[in-house]
Amino acid sequence: MTWHIFIPDSLLEESKDQKIRTYKIGQIARAASIFGVEHIWIYRAGGKDGKFIKLILEYAETPQYLRRHLFPLRDELRYAGVIPPLRTPHHKLKSKPKVGEIREGVIVKKGRMYADIGLDELAVVEDGKGLKGRHTFRIVSTKPLKVVLAQPEEYWGYKVHLTKKSLAKTLKKARLDVAIATSRKGEDVRRVKLPEFEGNIGFVFGSPRKGVLEILRDFNEDYEFDLILNTIPNQKTQTVRTEEAVLATLAVFNFIRRD
Amino acid sequence: MTWHIFIPDSLLEESKDQKIRTYKIGQIARAASIFGVEHIWIYRAGGKDGKFIKLILEYAETPQYLRRHLFPLRDELRYAGVIPPLRTPHHKLKSKPKVGEIREGVIVKKGRMYADIGLDELAVVEDGKGLKGRHTFRIVSTKPLKVVLAQPEEYWGYKVHLTKKSLAKTLKKARLDVAIATSRKGEDVRRVKLPEFEGNIGFVFGSPRKGVLEILRDFNEDYEFDLILNTIPNQKTQTVRTEEAVLATLAVFNFIRRD
Repeated sequence: MTWHIFIPDSLLEESKDQKIRTYKIGQIARAASIFGVEHIWIYRAGGKDGKFIKLILEYAETPQYLRRHLFPLRDELRYAGVIPPLRTPHHKLKSKPKVGEIREGVIVKKGRMYADIGLDELAVVEDGKGLKGRHTFRIVSTKPLKVVLAQPEEYWGYKVHLTKKSLAKTLKKARLDVAIATSRKGEDVRRVKLPEFEGNIGFVFGSPRKGVLEILRDFNEDYEFDLILNTIPNQKTQTVRTEEAVLATLAVFNFIRRD
Repeated sequence: MTWHIFIPDSLLEESKDQKIRTYKIGQIARAASIFGVEHIWIYRAGGKDGKFIKLILEYAETPQYLRRHLFPLRDELRYAGVIPPLRTPHHKLKSKPKVGEIREGVIVKKGRMYADIGLDELAVVEDGKGLKGRHTFRIVSTKPLKVVLAQPEEYWGYKVHLTKKSLAKTLKKARLDVAIATSRKGEDVRRVKLPEFEGNIGFVFGSPRKGVLEILRDFNEDYEFDLILNTIPNQKTQTVRTEEAVLATLAVFNFIRRD
């Protein structure tokens, strides 16, 4: 089962403070990581922050030792220090290299092909011809330090997709098996007979000011969701913020899932 | 059913930034309000922020129009502007007064006894002799504007208790019917047969660095919890922050509760 979440590019429409805006995106990054979300989709909903949201989500997802390679200093990252560390399995600390260990790395060319995998020395990349940028590697030798490309089995962070497309088009692109809209006006999640979930499951969230269905309407769109659910029945506050809805909804579905 | 949450005075031990510290407490206030928590207990766990946490929680819980009466300007409130509004039923906007309406107010003495209930004029308090500070009022007449003390039936915010006592002592003081510790090492909430909950239910949370059981041990204490639960089974991050655990746990129990 692969989890996707869909958030609007208007996520920050009610936040003016740049530090808090950064922190809020960090909360989405944390929620996604806690529950093993593999894809975060940012859809067009009239907001102006799509690129910024993507930048902060990707920054948060990148192991600390790779950030200086992949994120040149820029003004939008001024408050990146407030983003809580994810502490997922792929954010490894520096340690003695072990054969078999999987680490994220970035290609560094120095005559031969090397990767910075966050250790004291660079690792030689075997069969690394033509590689660029960030990859996942397995250590196959420690003296000399050598790595090959690897496919991790445990949770290894999320990918961010800024589609610049409306919600219905973004959903189509994601090719979900089950699409679940969250809405205060949806069915009470406690009363619905939920199907056995399999494959690609998408949870769709609205913006601080507009619900999912309203956003679709604004774009003259329609989408046949498998479920439209109120995942916070009897909420006592008039609104639930997107980042709160993400964490609460994933917590409920993490409880429901049995695998 | 009445929900209580227990948070340590070391809640902020990993946050140095004062704006983020304020915001984090605001997140606890929001989580409590979304799910109708009526009591927030701050227990002693070696932290230094008990008073600050209480201040911000109470500030957040106070309707905006009463804040200037009850919270004189002070340095700790410098970043209070970042606290998200709760938008609970007791945070009313200014409107035309209606007979029967319940509003929070604060006593203002001006010869007779008046209350500021957030409207254009002060309300005369009937039978208000000896009253001071903040109370809940019902409008009984609009011309002239008159109120009496009232007991709201809907969710009306939370009370904050800074006990300055250790966890076991704080729990004893709260006189719970069911005490639930949250812990990564607890039983998987999905596998436990949960009792029908009634009465006063307490959810106990640890600090960013120490779990509930560890905190008890540090104080040479023991407490017989009804349940020790892992409410976020299979978490993919090494730690879950207190404010995340509060929101996620309450979301799961809101799903479980059937009333």
